[in-house]
Amino acid sequence: MASYDPKTFKLLTFHDAVAKFRDGKDTPRAYLERCLDVIETREPEVQAFVVLNIDGARKAADESGKRYAEGKPLSTIDGMPIGIKDLFETMDMPTQMGSPVWKGWESGRDAAHVRGLRKAGSVVLGKLVTTELGFSFPGKTRNPIDSGRTPGGSSSGSAAAIGAGMLPAAIGSQVVGSVIRPAGYCGNVAIKPTFGALNRGGGHSSLSQSHIGVHAGSIEDAWATCWNIANIAGGDVGHPGLYGALEPAAPAKPARLIQLETAGWAQADEASKEALQGVVAELRKQGVTVIGKADDADVAAYEALSAEALELSIIICMFELRWPLLGYRERGPGMLSDFMLGRLADAEKQTLEDYRDMLARREKIRAAFAALKSKADGFITLSSPGPAPKGLESTGNPSMNAAMSITGAPAWSLPLLAVDGMPLGVQLVGFPHEDAKVTGHARWLMGTYLGA
Amino acid sequence: MASYDPKTFKLLTFHDAVAKFRDGKDTPRAYLERCLDVIETREPEVQAFVVLNIDGARKAADESGKRYAEGKPLSTIDGMPIGIKDLFETMDMPTQMGSPVWKGWESGRDAAHVRGLRKAGSVVLGKLVTTELGFSFPGKTRNPIDSGRTPGGSSSGSAAAIGAGMLPAAIGSQVVGSVIRPAGYCGNVAIKPTFGALNRGGGHSSLSQSHIGVHAGSIEDAWATCWNIANIAGGDVGHPGLYGALEPAAPAKPARLIQLETAGWAQADEASKEALQGVVAELRKQGVTVIGKADDADVAAYEALSAEALELSIIICMFELRWPLLGYRERGPGMLSDFMLGRLADAEKQTLEDYRDMLARREKIRAAFAALKSKADGFITLSSPGPAPKGLESTGNPSMNAAMSITGAPAWSLPLLAVDGMPLGVQLVGFPHEDAKVTGHARWLMGTYLGA
Repeated sequence: MASYDPKTFKLLTFHDAVAKFRDGKDTPRAYLERCLDVIETREPEVQAFVVLNIDGARKAADESGKRYAEGKPLSTIDGMPIGIKDLFETMDMPTQMGSPVWKGWESGRDAAHVRGLRKAGSVVLGKLVTTELGFSFPGKTRNPIDSGRTPGGSSSGSAAAIGAGMLPAAIGSQVVGSVIRPAGYCGNVAIKPTFGALNRGGGHSSLSQSHIGVHAGSIEDAWATCWNIANIAGGDVGHPGLYGALEPAAPAKPARLIQLETAGWAQADEASKEALQGVVAELRKQGVTVIGKADDADVAAYEALSAEALELSIIICMFELRWPLLGYRERGPGMLSDFMLGRLADAEKQTLEDYRDMLARREKIRAAFAALKSKADGFITLSSPGPAPKGLESTGNPSMNAAMSITGAPAWSLPLLAVDGMPLGVQLVGFPHEDAKVTGHARWLMGTYLGA
Repeated sequence: MASYDPKTFKLLTFHDAVAKFRDGKDTPRAYLERCLDVIETREPEVQAFVVLNIDGARKAADESGKRYAEGKPLSTIDGMPIGIKDLFETMDMPTQMGSPVWKGWESGRDAAHVRGLRKAGSVVLGKLVTTELGFSFPGKTRNPIDSGRTPGGSSSGSAAAIGAGMLPAAIGSQVVGSVIRPAGYCGNVAIKPTFGALNRGGGHSSLSQSHIGVHAGSIEDAWATCWNIANIAGGDVGHPGLYGALEPAAPAKPARLIQLETAGWAQADEASKEALQGVVAELRKQGVTVIGKADDADVAAYEALSAEALELSIIICMFELRWPLLGYRERGPGMLSDFMLGRLADAEKQTLEDYRDMLARREKIRAAFAALKSKADGFITLSSPGPAPKGLESTGNPSMNAAMSITGAPAWSLPLLAVDGMPLGVQLVGFPHEDAKVTGHARWLMGTYLGA
C-alpha cells in the first residue's frame, strides 16, 4: 500500500534552480540530465510519455545554458524542461491524441503555446499520454504513487510525469476535469486558468469550454509557465488572456471563502470529506470565514443549478465534437472507442435547438456563479471525490471539477491531503480573470497548511 | 469595355431546378454537366478553381439522381453543385490556402460545413482560389465580367465561379470584406451570416471575427445552403448557430433603414454613390423611411466610432495570426508574401495589453451598433466603394465591409447596380441573429428593384 505524505513528498521545482544557473553552480543541461535519470528509472512503470525528443532537449538545454552564461536568459522559464500533452502540435514530434485516427500524424508545426514555451527558452522534452482525444478512454499511464491505480485523465501523462518527479512542469488541458483531477490523484500542483487565458491554437482542443492548464511541482513554476505563454502567445482569440504580473501574487490570506459541494460531494468518500473538513477547520482557525450553501441562499441556488454541470458539459462538448467525430466514425470500425461511440450516438440525437437550450442552461449556471462575487474571495472544495481509484480502466470521477469548467473559473489543485495512503487534492477556485488573486491565496494556503 | 446590366445578367439557380429532378425532366447529373460545360468554356480565362474533382462530383450527382428518382432527396440542396473556398479541408482534394506553406497539403477529412453539405446531398465539385491564407495577396483568378479586373478577395474563386455561371453556390469566408466585396464585384448574391452562425471547424479561419459565407446565384440558394449547414453541422462552438426556418423569409418591405456610410463612403466614386442614392430614392418611393447620420445622433455616434473598423479589424486579426504566421516565417524566405510580412511585423510590436485595448475598442463599436436596434430594421450601403478596380495586383478596398464584420452583423450583397459597365453590389445589413429578417428584406428589394 502506498504511504503518500504531502508534507514530505518531493516534487521537482525549477524557479529555485535559476540562481545556480546564473552563478554557474548548475546548468540547464545538468537539470535536464537529472530529469532524464528519473525518467529512466520511473518511466518503465509509470509510462507517462508517448515519445521523447532527448537529443532536441539536450540541444535546447545547452543553448539555454549559453544564455545563462552570458547573463541573458530569455525568460523566467528559460531552460525549464517541460512536457506537452499529446493533444497539441509539436514540430519535432508526432501528435497522436491517444487515438488511432491520428496515429503517426506530424503537423510540422508547434501549437501556439508550444511555440511560446520555446521562445521563452523552455526545453520541450516529450509528448505526454492523453486519453482518447482528450476524453475518457484511458491511455497506458499509471499512477506514480501506486501503479495499480489510474493517474486520472485526460492529462494522464502530464500529471504522472510531475508526480513521478520526472519534470518540473507539464502542459495539460481540461474540458470537464482533465487537469485538476489528475493533478489531485498524482500529488501535483496544477492550475486551470480562466477560460481563454492561454492560446489553444494548434491543438485539438477547440471546444467551447476547453482550457490549457499547467501541472507543476510548485505554484511558482506553474504560474511562470502560464504567464510566459500568455505574454508570448496570447490567450484564445477574442479573449483578453491571462491577467496578472510576471511575479506570482504574494501569499495572501483570503478573508472569506465559499465551501462548494458541487455534485461531487455526494459521491465523495467519508475519509476525503473529513480531510477537507480538516483544511476548513484550519482556515477558520486562521481567521478565514468559510460559508456554504446552508449559510447563503445564493450559494444554495448556485449549488442547485450546477448539479447538472457534469452531464451538461459532456453533452455540450459532444455536440460540438459531432464534427469531427462523425467523420472519424465513418472511416470504419476501430477508429473510436465504444465509450466515445456511445457518447457520440447520444449527441447525434440532439438538434441545433437542443444545443441552444444547453447553452442557455450553461449561461444560467454562469450567472448564478457570477452573482457570488460579492459574497466571497473564492471557493474551496476537493479536486476529486476521493483519491485515485484502483485499476486502470477508468480515469476517475470528474464531478468535483465540472462546476469550474462550465463557469470558466480559475482553479488550482493543491497537494495538501492524503487519504488511503494516496494524494488528495484541495481545489481552490477564483472568479474569472482573478487568476492572480487565487494564486496568492493558493500560495498562502500551501505555506500555512504544509509549512512549505 | 464590359457592359454588365443587372436586369439581364444571368446567374445559375438551383432551387428552381428541383421540381424537374422530382418529375424526371432533369437530373442532378445533367445539371452538373451543364456546369462543367460552362467551366470548360470560361475557366481558362477566369481561373476560379485550384482543383476540380469531376469524377467524384459525377458520382455524387448520380447518387443524388437516384434519390430523386426514389422520391427521397436528402435536403433542399440535394444534387446542388458547390465549390469550396480553399481555406477549408476536403477529404477528396488538397487544401492549400493560397500559400506555399500549405502546398499539396491533404488533411484527409472534410471541414464541418463540407461534411454538412455532403450529408445534405450536395455535389462538392472543386476548391476555389483564395488569396494568401485568406488575406490580401491575390491568387490567379480574374473577374468574370472583365478579365482585366480583380474578382475581389479573399473569396476570389468563389465569387468568380458564381459570376461566370459555373456554379449555383460556392462557399466563401469573410474576416473584413472577403465575401461581400467580391460578390459585389462579380455580380453575385452573397450572404455573410451573423458571426458564429456556420461552423468553421476544419478550416484555417479561426479568428475572432471570421465568418463562413455563401455566394450564389439567388437568395434562395444561398439561404438554403446556410440553413442546411447550420442544421447539420451547427454553428461555431459556443454559438447558437443560424436562426431561421428552412424556407427563406418571405419578401418583406422594411419599414425603416439606416443608410450607413462607414469609412468607405469617403472613398467611393461619385457614380457609385449616385447609383446607391437611386436605390435609396426607390426605397423612399416605396414608403421605406431611410435615415442617416444627419438624422440621428446615435447613428452619427456609430459612424464616428466605426471609422476605425477596418484598421482595427486588421490589427486584431493579425495579432491573432502571430501564431501561426511567425512559425511560418521562421521556416525561411518565400513562405509569406511581403504584404503579409509587413502586417506581421506591425502585429509583432503589439503586446497582450495592446490587444486587450483593441478588443475593448471593438466592444465599444458593437455596443454603439446594438444601440441602433430600436431605430431601424437594418442598414443599407454599398458592397464596395466602387466596381472592381482594374488590374489583378489588388483585390480591392474592403472599407465598406469592415463595419459589418467587426459587429458580426448579417449582411447580403445584392447585384442591383452597374457602374462603368461593371456590377456594383448593394449591401443590406441586419442585426446579429436576425439573418432571416434581413433575408426577407433582401428578397423584397431584389424583386422591387430588378423586378425579379
